[in-house]
Amino acid sequence: MDYEYLIRDLNQISSRKIIGTDKGLAKIGDGVVNLAYSVAKSIFLTNNSTNKKIVRTGLKVNRTILSNALKNANMKEFAKNRGDAHDLADTVEAIIAYVWLSNKMTLSDIIDILKNNFEGDLRIKSQELKSAIQAFTKLLIHAIKYLPEK
Amino acid sequence: MDYEYLIRDLNQISSRKIIGTDKGLAKIGDGVVNLAYSVAKSIFLTNNSTNKKIVRTGLKVNRTILSNALKNANMKEFAKNRGDAHDLADTVEAIIAYVWLSNKMTLSDIIDILKNNFEGDLRIKSQELKSAIQAFTKLLIHAIKYLPEK
Repeated sequence: MDYEYLIRDLNQISSRKIIGTDKGLAKIGDGVVNLAYSVAKSIFLTNNSTNKKIVRTGLKVNRTILSNALKNANMKEFAKNRGDAHDLADTVEAIIAYVWLSNKMTLSDIIDILKNNFEGDLRIKSQELKSAIQAFTKLLIHAIKYLPEK
Repeated sequence: MDYEYLIRDLNQISSRKIIGTDKGLAKIGDGVVNLAYSVAKSIFLTNNSTNKKIVRTGLKVNRTILSNALKNANMKEFAKNRGDAHDLADTVEAIIAYVWLSNKMTLSDIIDILKNNFEGDLRIKSQELKSAIQAFTKLLIHAIKYLPEK
């Protein structure tokens, strides 16, 4: 699997803001984010179920989760100036697509970081929100080393 | 990457209808379908662009596409009896999640089958719809050999 040519133009320019505001990258990232989150959540709930019951589930990761993660990771410089929550969420999706397409992080790597940073009872909405923000924050902090320096 | 334990219970039962109507599997499959489609569409448009321009894009694959693919592949027996388009689409998502989680098909395999079965100008809505139905039909016909016989 090598889709790196899909970001060749971005690698030539090498700019945090250009990567973070690329609309097409955000669309691909939307898929990476939702798939990784669904698998990570399924694994976490399965591992933590009292009766070893297998849990398969998913979630459309919303803009509240992603925009807060970008802020907590202090990575707003990747986003559009004065961007709203929707813009910041798109930036997180674009960043995740970028590190995935550039083969710096596999889907497994992304799933592992998310599941290892979940805590509490994800079946409770407020705890899931808090846990998801924390997990995506950690993922972004991990991803930053694969991104341009400015 | 080995998430096969997330379908261990389904492997023990080994039933087309139980796999095809598993709600959690459909949620995971939603992520696989949308990510694979977005990458396949980006590759196809990039390869077919006149000026070698790189195209990154995505699409929320809708129930019309998926439900028609299930019918064209003659695989309605995997779905709920008298299921509507939403149920049939869920079944396609569940099937794709199942072959992916069971390591029978990688994300690359799924992307390849989709992109190799696209045709026409995907930038035109009606052509994209036709092409997407055709590509998912081919994907299902390929996947059936990894599924229980009844």
